Amino acid sequence: MSAIDELATELSRLPGIGRKTALRLTYHLLRQPPEQSRRLADALGGLSDRVHRCSVCANLTEGDPCDICGDSRRDRAIVCVVEEASDIGAIERAGEFRGVYHVLGGRLSPLDGVGPEDLNVDRLVERVTPGTVREVIIATNPSLEGEATALYVQRQLASHVPMISRIARGIPVGGDLEYADGVTIAQALSARREM
Amino acid sequence: MSAIDELATELSRLPGIGRKTALRLTYHLLRQPPEQSRRLADALGGLSDRVHRCSVCANLTEGDPCDICGDSRRDRAIVCVVEEASDIGAIERAGEFRGVYHVLGGRLSPLDGVGPEDLNVDRLVERVTPGTVREVIIATNPSLEGEATALYVQRQLASHVPMISRIARGIPVGGDLEYADGVTIAQALSARREM
Repeated sequence: MSAIDELATELSRLPGIGRKTALRLTYHLLRQPPEQSRRLADALGGLSDRVHRCSVCANLTEGDPCDICGDSRRDRAIVCVVEEASDIGAIERAGEFRGVYHVLGGRLSPLDGVGPEDLNVDRLVERVTPGTVREVIIATNPSLEGEATALYVQRQLASHVPMISRIARGIPVGGDLEYADGVTIAQALSARREM
Repeated sequence: MSAIDELATELSRLPGIGRKTALRLTYHLLRQPPEQSRRLADALGGLSDRVHRCSVCANLTEGDPCDICGDSRRDRAIVCVVEEASDIGAIERAGEFRGVYHVLGGRLSPLDGVGPEDLNVDRLVERVTPGTVREVIIATNPSLEGEATALYVQRQLASHVPMISRIARGIPVGGDLEYADGVTIAQALSARREM
Protein backbone atom coordinates (compact mmCIF):
# COMPACT_ATOMS: atom_id res chain seq x y z
CA MET A 1 0.00 0.00 0.00
CA SER A 2 1.33 3.47 -0.84
CA ALA A 3 2.29 5.91 1.94
CA ILE A 4 -0.63 8.13 0.93
CA ASP A 5 -3.14 5.25 1.05
CA GLU A 6 -1.66 4.04 4.33
CA LEU A 7 -2.11 7.40 6.06
CA ALA A 8 -5.57 7.89 4.55
CA THR A 9 -6.59 4.42 5.80
CA GLU A 10 -5.33 5.12 9.33
CA LEU A 11 -7.00 8.56 9.40
CA SER A 12 -10.31 7.10 8.19
CA ARG A 13 -10.36 4.83 11.26
CA LEU A 14 -11.01 7.95 13.36
CA PRO A 15 -14.64 8.71 14.20
CA GLY A 16 -16.33 11.17 11.83
CA ILE A 17 -13.55 10.97 9.24
CA GLY A 18 -14.54 9.20 6.03
CA ARG A 19 -12.41 8.14 3.11
CA LYS A 20 -12.65 11.47 1.26
CA THR A 21 -11.84 13.57 4.32
CA ALA A 22 -8.92 11.28 5.13
CA LEU A 23 -7.51 11.79 1.63
CA ARG A 24 -8.06 15.55 1.86
CA LEU A 25 -6.17 15.68 5.18
CA THR A 26 -3.36 13.56 3.73
CA TYR A 27 -2.91 15.86 0.73
CA HIS A 28 -3.11 18.84 3.06
CA LEU A 29 -0.23 17.45 5.12
CA LEU A 30 1.76 16.86 1.92
CA ARG A 31 1.40 20.56 1.11
CA GLN A 32 2.71 21.55 4.57
CA PRO A 33 6.34 21.47 5.76
CA PRO A 34 7.25 17.87 6.79
CA GLU A 35 7.72 19.08 10.38
CA GLN A 36 3.96 19.33 10.77
CA SER A 37 3.42 15.61 10.06
CA ARG A 38 6.38 14.82 12.29
CA ARG A 39 5.04 16.86 15.21
CA LEU A 40 1.68 15.14 14.83
CA ALA A 41 3.40 11.73 14.73
CA ASP A 42 5.41 12.60 17.85
CA ALA A 43 2.30 13.75 19.68
CA LEU A 44 0.60 10.46 18.78
CA GLY A 45 3.59 8.47 19.99
CA GLY A 46 3.68 10.40 23.25
CA LEU A 47 0.00 9.72 23.85
CA SER A 48 0.17 6.02 24.72
CA ASP A 49 3.64 6.30 26.31
CA ARG A 50 2.87 9.18 28.63
CA VAL A 51 -0.85 8.99 29.40
CA HIS A 52 -2.29 6.43 31.85
CA ARG A 53 -5.11 6.18 34.40
CA CYS A 54 -4.98 7.98 37.76
CA SER A 55 -4.83 5.29 40.47
CA VAL A 56 -7.39 7.20 42.54
CA CYS A 57 -10.08 8.38 40.14
CA ALA A 58 -9.13 6.71 36.78
CA ASN A 59 -8.83 10.10 35.08
CA LEU A 60 -6.38 10.13 32.16
CA THR A 61 -3.16 11.69 33.43
CA GLU A 62 0.60 11.82 33.03
CA GLY A 63 1.42 12.01 36.76
CA ASP A 64 -0.11 9.88 39.51
CA PRO A 65 -2.30 10.95 41.19
CA CYS A 66 -3.78 13.23 38.54
CA ASP A 67 -3.69 17.04 38.89
CA ILE A 68 -7.18 17.12 40.39
CA CYS A 69 -6.71 14.32 42.94
CA GLY A 70 -3.35 15.84 43.88
CA ASP A 71 -4.72 19.37 44.34
CA SER A 72 -5.07 20.10 48.08
CA ARG A 73 -7.57 22.91 47.39
CA ARG A 74 -10.14 20.46 45.94
CA ASP A 75 -12.82 19.22 48.33
CA ARG A 76 -12.34 15.44 48.65
CA ALA A 77 -15.69 15.11 50.44
CA ILE A 78 -17.59 15.68 47.17
CA VAL A 79 -17.09 13.12 44.39
CA CYS A 80 -18.52 13.63 40.93
CA VAL A 81 -19.00 10.34 39.03
CA VAL A 82 -18.65 10.53 35.22
CA GLU A 83 -18.70 8.00 32.40
CA GLU A 84 -15.49 9.00 30.63
CA ALA A 85 -12.35 11.00 31.42
CA SER A 86 -13.33 13.41 28.63
CA ASP A 87 -16.41 14.39 30.68
CA ILE A 88 -14.09 15.79 33.36
CA GLY A 89 -12.75 18.32 30.86
CA ALA A 90 -16.28 19.46 30.06
CA ILE A 91 -17.17 19.94 33.75
CA GLU A 92 -13.84 21.65 34.54
CA ARG A 93 -14.39 24.13 31.71
CA ALA A 94 -17.66 25.14 33.40
CA GLY A 95 -15.46 26.18 36.37
CA GLU A 96 -18.22 25.54 38.91
CA PHE A 97 -17.16 22.29 40.59
CA ARG A 98 -14.48 22.23 43.31
CA GLY A 99 -14.72 18.57 44.40
CA VAL A 100 -12.97 15.52 42.94
CA TYR A 101 -13.99 12.99 40.27
CA HIS A 102 -14.44 9.30 39.66
CA VAL A 103 -14.36 7.87 36.14
CA LEU A 104 -16.48 4.76 35.50
CA GLY A 105 -14.89 4.06 32.14
CA GLY A 106 -18.21 3.57 30.35
CA ARG A 107 -21.88 2.98 31.04
CA LEU A 108 -24.10 -0.07 31.41
CA SER A 109 -25.10 -1.23 27.95
CA PRO A 110 -26.26 -4.85 27.70
CA LEU A 111 -26.60 -4.59 23.91
CA ASP A 112 -22.87 -3.73 23.64
CA GLY A 113 -21.99 -6.36 26.22
CA VAL A 114 -21.05 -3.82 28.90
CA GLY A 115 -22.11 -5.09 32.34
CA PRO A 116 -21.52 -3.83 35.93
CA GLU A 117 -18.22 -5.78 36.14
CA ASP A 118 -16.84 -3.67 33.25
CA LEU A 119 -17.29 -0.42 35.18
CA ASN A 120 -14.87 1.03 37.72
CA VAL A 121 -17.43 0.86 40.57
CA ASP A 122 -15.66 -1.35 43.13
CA ARG A 123 -12.90 1.25 43.42
CA LEU A 124 -15.58 3.93 43.96
CA VAL A 125 -17.14 1.93 46.80
CA GLU A 126 -13.65 1.58 48.36
CA ARG A 127 -13.12 5.32 48.09
CA VAL A 128 -16.33 6.22 49.91
CA THR A 129 -16.20 3.44 52.52
CA PRO A 130 -14.10 5.33 55.14
CA GLY A 131 -17.10 7.65 55.56
CA THR A 132 -15.24 10.83 54.65
CA VAL A 133 -17.30 11.51 51.54
CA ARG A 134 -20.24 13.84 52.14
CA GLU A 135 -21.84 13.76 48.72
CA VAL A 136 -21.60 11.82 45.47
CA ILE A 137 -22.92 13.61 42.38
CA ILE A 138 -23.73 11.16 39.60
CA ALA A 139 -23.02 12.93 36.30
CA THR A 140 -23.49 10.11 33.80
CA ASN A 141 -25.17 11.27 30.58
CA PRO A 142 -28.96 11.65 30.67
CA SER A 143 -29.39 8.84 28.11
CA LEU A 144 -31.12 5.50 28.65
CA GLU A 145 -27.82 3.76 29.44
CA GLY A 146 -26.57 6.70 31.50
CA GLU A 147 -29.70 6.64 33.66
CA ALA A 148 -29.44 2.87 34.19
CA THR A 149 -25.80 3.35 35.16
CA ALA A 150 -26.72 6.16 37.57
CA LEU A 151 -29.31 3.92 39.23
CA TYR A 152 -26.82 1.05 39.55
CA VAL A 153 -24.12 3.29 41.06
CA GLN A 154 -26.63 4.86 43.45
CA ARG A 155 -27.62 1.40 44.75
CA GLN A 156 -24.00 0.37 45.28
CA LEU A 157 -23.25 3.51 47.28
CA ALA A 158 -26.53 4.04 49.15
CA SER A 159 -25.36 2.63 52.48
CA HIS A 160 -21.97 4.40 52.43
CA VAL A 161 -22.74 8.03 51.55
CA PRO A 162 -25.08 10.51 53.30
CA MET A 163 -26.14 12.15 50.04
CA ILE A 164 -26.22 10.91 46.45
CA SER A 165 -27.40 13.41 43.83
CA ARG A 166 -27.98 13.40 40.09
CA ILE A 167 -27.20 16.33 37.75
CA ALA A 168 -30.33 18.18 36.66
CA ARG A 169 -31.92 17.45 33.31
CA GLY A 170 -33.64 20.33 31.54
CA ILE A 171 -33.53 22.87 28.77
CA PRO A 172 -29.93 23.89 28.01
CA VAL A 173 -29.08 27.50 28.88
CA GLY A 174 -29.47 29.54 25.71
CA GLY A 175 -31.63 26.77 24.29
CA ASP A 176 -35.14 27.12 22.94
CA LEU A 177 -38.28 25.39 24.22
CA GLU A 178 -39.52 25.19 20.65
CA TYR A 179 -36.66 22.92 19.65
CA ALA A 180 -36.41 20.85 22.82
CA ASP A 181 -37.74 17.28 22.69
CA GLY A 182 -40.77 16.27 24.72
CA VAL A 183 -38.90 14.13 27.22
CA THR A 184 -36.53 16.99 28.06
CA ILE A 185 -39.43 19.42 28.50
CA ALA A 186 -41.22 16.94 30.76
CA GLN A 187 -38.04 16.56 32.85
CA ALA A 188 -37.55 20.32 33.00
CA LEU A 189 -41.16 20.74 34.19
CA SER A 190 -41.07 18.04 36.85
CA ALA A 191 -37.70 19.28 38.16
CA ARG A 192 -38.98 22.89 38.38
CA ARG A 193 -37.87 24.91 41.39
CA GLU A 194 -39.57 27.71 43.24
CA MET A 195 -38.31 31.15 42.30
CA MET B 1 1.91 20.96 27.74
CA SER B 2 0.28 17.61 28.51
CA ALA B 3 0.39 14.79 25.94
CA ILE B 4 -3.37 15.12 25.47
CA ASP B 5 -3.14 18.88 24.84
CA GLU B 6 -0.17 18.38 22.55
CA LEU B 7 -1.98 15.89 20.31
CA ALA B 8 -5.18 17.96 20.34
CA THR B 9 -3.19 21.03 19.32
CA GLU B 10 -1.51 19.21 16.44
CA LEU B 11 -4.79 17.69 15.26
CA SER B 12 -6.52 21.07 15.37
CA ARG B 13 -3.99 22.38 12.83
CA LEU B 14 -5.66 20.15 10.23
CA PRO B 15 -8.29 21.79 8.02
CA GLY B 16 -11.87 21.32 9.22
CA ILE B 17 -10.79 20.07 12.65
CA GLY B 18 -11.51 22.49 15.47
CA ARG B 19 -10.45 22.35 19.10
CA LYS B 20 -13.46 20.28 20.22
CA THR B 21 -13.14 17.72 17.43
CA ALA B 22 -9.40 17.45 18.09
CA LEU B 23 -10.09 16.66 21.75
CA ARG B 24 -12.76 14.13 20.79
CA LEU B 25 -10.34 12.37 18.44
CA THR B 26 -7.64 12.37 21.12
CA TYR B 27 -9.91 10.78 23.69
CA HIS B 28 -11.10 8.31 21.07
CA LEU B 29 -7.49 7.24 20.44
CA LEU B 30 -6.95 6.85 24.20
CA ARG B 31 -9.84 4.38 24.29
CA GLN B 32 -8.32 2.31 21.45
CA PRO B 33 -5.39 -0.11 21.72
CA PRO B 34 -2.08 1.88 21.62
CA GLU B 35 -1.23 0.17 18.30
CA GLN B 36 -3.79 2.33 16.53
CA SER B 37 -2.05 5.59 17.52
CA ARG B 38 1.27 3.99 16.67
CA ARG B 39 0.14 2.88 13.21
CA LEU B 40 -1.17 6.39 12.56
CA ALA B 41 2.13 7.89 13.77
CA ASP B 42 4.08 5.50 11.51
CA ALA B 43 1.91 6.37 8.52
CA LEU B 44 2.55 10.07 9.19
CA GLY B 45 6.28 9.49 9.48
CA GLY B 46 6.30 7.50 6.26
CA LEU B 47 4.51 10.28 4.43
CA SER B 48 7.30 12.84 4.22
CA ASP B 49 10.04 10.20 4.04
CA ARG B 50 8.56 8.15 1.22
CA VAL B 51 6.49 10.57 -0.86
CA HIS B 52 8.11 13.02 -3.29
CA ARG B 53 7.36 14.64 -6.67
CA CYS B 54 7.52 12.69 -9.96
CA SER B 55 10.36 14.18 -12.04
CA VAL B 56 8.16 14.06 -15.16
CA CYS B 57 4.72 15.27 -14.11
CA ALA B 58 5.22 16.44 -10.47
CA ASN B 59 2.59 13.98 -9.23
CA LEU B 60 3.12 12.85 -5.62
CA THR B 61 4.70 9.41 -5.79
CA GLU B 62 6.98 6.95 -4.02
CA GLY B 63 8.82 5.72 -7.14
CA ASP B 64 10.17 7.86 -9.97
CA PRO B 65 8.65 8.21 -12.49
CA CYS B 66 5.21 7.85 -10.89
CA ASP B 67 2.94 4.89 -11.66
CA ILE B 68 1.11 6.82 -14.36
CA CYS B 69 4.15 8.21 -16.19
CA GLY B 70 5.76 4.77 -15.98
CA ASP B 71 2.72 2.93 -17.36
CA SER B 72 3.36 2.02 -21.02
CA ARG B 73 -0.37 1.63 -21.70
CA ARG B 74 -1.00 5.33 -21.01
CA ASP B 75 -1.13 7.62 -24.04
CA ARG B 76 1.77 10.08 -23.68
CA ALA B 77 0.40 12.18 -26.53
CA ILE B 78 -2.41 13.48 -24.32
CA VAL B 79 -1.42 15.51 -21.26
CA CYS B 80 -3.98 16.60 -18.67
CA VAL B 81 -2.87 19.66 -16.69
CA VAL B 82 -4.14 19.89 -13.10
CA GLU B 83 -3.59 22.28 -10.20
CA GLU B 84 -2.75 19.77 -7.49
CA ALA B 85 -1.64 16.13 -7.29
CA SER B 86 -4.85 15.36 -5.40
CA ASP B 87 -6.81 16.25 -8.56
CA ILE B 88 -5.16 13.31 -10.34
CA GLY B 89 -6.74 10.92 -7.87
CA ALA B 90 -10.14 12.47 -8.57
CA ILE B 91 -9.75 12.11 -12.35
CA GLU B 92 -8.35 8.57 -12.08
CA ARG B 93 -11.33 7.49 -10.00
CA ALA B 94 -13.58 8.58 -12.87
CA GLY B 95 -11.75 5.94 -14.98
CA GLU B 96 -12.26 7.89 -18.23
CA PHE B 97 -8.84 9.32 -18.97
CA ARG B 98 -6.01 7.22 -20.46
CA GLY B 99 -3.39 9.93 -21.08
CA VAL B 100 -0.79 11.33 -18.69
CA TYR B 101 -0.79 14.29 -16.30
CA HIS B 102 1.06 17.45 -15.45
CA VAL B 103 0.75 19.03 -11.99
CA LEU B 104 1.10 22.82 -11.81
CA GLY B 105 1.37 22.88 -8.04
CA GLY B 106 -1.18 25.63 -7.62
CA ARG B 107 -3.01 28.32 -9.58
CA LEU B 108 -2.43 31.95 -10.38
CA SER B 109 -3.61 34.01 -7.45
CA PRO B 110 -2.18 37.52 -7.20
CA LEU B 111 -3.96 38.09 -3.89
CA ASP B 112 -2.08 35.16 -2.34
CA GLY B 113 1.15 36.20 -4.06
CA VAL B 114 1.11 33.23 -6.47
CA GLY B 115 2.45 34.30 -9.86
CA PRO B 116 3.38 32.42 -13.07
CA GLU B 117 6.91 31.78 -11.77
CA ASP B 118 5.45 29.77 -8.86
CA LEU B 119 3.74 27.30 -11.19
CA ASN B 120 5.37 24.26 -12.78
CA VAL B 121 4.81 25.56 -16.34
CA ASP B 122 8.36 25.69 -17.75
CA ARG B 123 8.65 21.93 -17.30
CA LEU B 124 5.33 21.54 -19.14
CA VAL B 125 6.60 23.61 -22.08
CA GLU B 126 9.73 21.40 -22.16
CA ARG B 127 7.58 18.27 -22.17
CA VAL B 128 5.52 19.35 -25.19
CA THR B 129 8.35 20.97 -27.17
CA PRO B 130 9.50 17.78 -28.99
CA GLY B 131 6.14 17.87 -30.80
CA THR B 132 5.03 14.43 -29.70
CA VAL B 133 2.09 15.73 -27.69
CA ARG B 134 -1.16 15.77 -29.69
CA GLU B 135 -3.42 17.37 -27.11
CA VAL B 136 -3.18 19.19 -23.80
CA ILE B 137 -6.35 19.15 -21.67
CA ILE B 138 -6.35 21.95 -19.12
CA ALA B 139 -8.20 20.67 -16.05
CA THR B 140 -7.62 23.48 -13.59
CA ASN B 141 -10.64 24.18 -11.38
CA PRO B 142 -13.44 26.24 -12.97
CA SER B 143 -12.90 29.05 -10.45
CA LEU B 144 -11.74 32.56 -11.22
CA GLU B 145 -8.10 31.70 -10.48
CA GLY B 146 -8.37 28.36 -12.26
CA GLU B 147 -9.67 30.04 -15.43
CA ALA B 148 -6.90 32.64 -15.34
CA THR B 149 -4.38 29.83 -14.90
CA ALA B 150 -5.91 27.92 -17.82
CA LEU B 151 -5.64 30.97 -20.05
CA TYR B 152 -2.03 31.52 -19.03
CA VAL B 153 -1.06 27.89 -19.66
CA GLN B 154 -2.88 27.91 -23.02
CA ARG B 155 -0.86 30.96 -24.14
CA GLN B 156 2.43 29.38 -23.12
CA LEU B 157 1.66 26.19 -25.05
CA ALA B 158 -0.20 27.58 -28.08
CA SER B 159 2.72 27.40 -30.53
CA HIS B 160 3.83 23.90 -29.43
CA VAL B 161 0.67 21.80 -29.35
CA PRO B 162 -1.86 21.16 -32.16
CA MET B 163 -4.81 21.14 -29.76
CA ILE B 164 -5.35 22.67 -26.34
CA SER B 165 -8.68 21.93 -24.68
CA ARG B 166 -10.43 22.89 -21.48
CA ILE B 167 -12.60 20.53 -19.44
CA ALA B 168 -16.30 21.34 -19.74
CA ARG B 169 -18.03 23.25 -17.01
CA GLY B 170 -19.90 20.19 -15.89
CA ILE B 171 -18.29 20.89 -12.57
CA PRO B 172 -20.15 23.63 -10.71
CA VAL B 173 -18.37 26.99 -11.06
CA GLY B 174 -16.61 27.81 -7.82
CA GLY B 175 -16.43 24.11 -6.97
CA ASP B 176 -13.39 21.95 -6.50
CA LEU B 177 -12.27 18.92 -8.55
CA GLU B 178 -11.30 17.13 -5.39
CA TYR B 179 -14.92 16.98 -4.23
CA ALA B 180 -16.61 16.25 -7.58
CA ASP B 181 -18.14 12.81 -8.20
CA GLY B 182 -16.76 10.49 -10.88
CA VAL B 183 -19.68 10.85 -13.32
CA THR B 184 -19.39 14.63 -13.33
CA ILE B 185 -15.65 14.41 -13.91
CA ALA B 186 -16.14 11.88 -16.73
CA GLN B 187 -18.71 14.16 -18.42
CA ALA B 188 -16.48 17.18 -18.01
CA LEU B 189 -13.66 15.28 -19.70
CA SER B 190 -15.66 13.95 -22.63
CA ALA B 191 -17.31 17.36 -23.28
CA ARG B 192 -13.96 19.20 -23.41
CA ARG B 193 -13.68 21.90 -26.13
CA GLU B 194 -10.76 23.30 -28.00
CA MET B 195 -9.50 26.58 -26.60
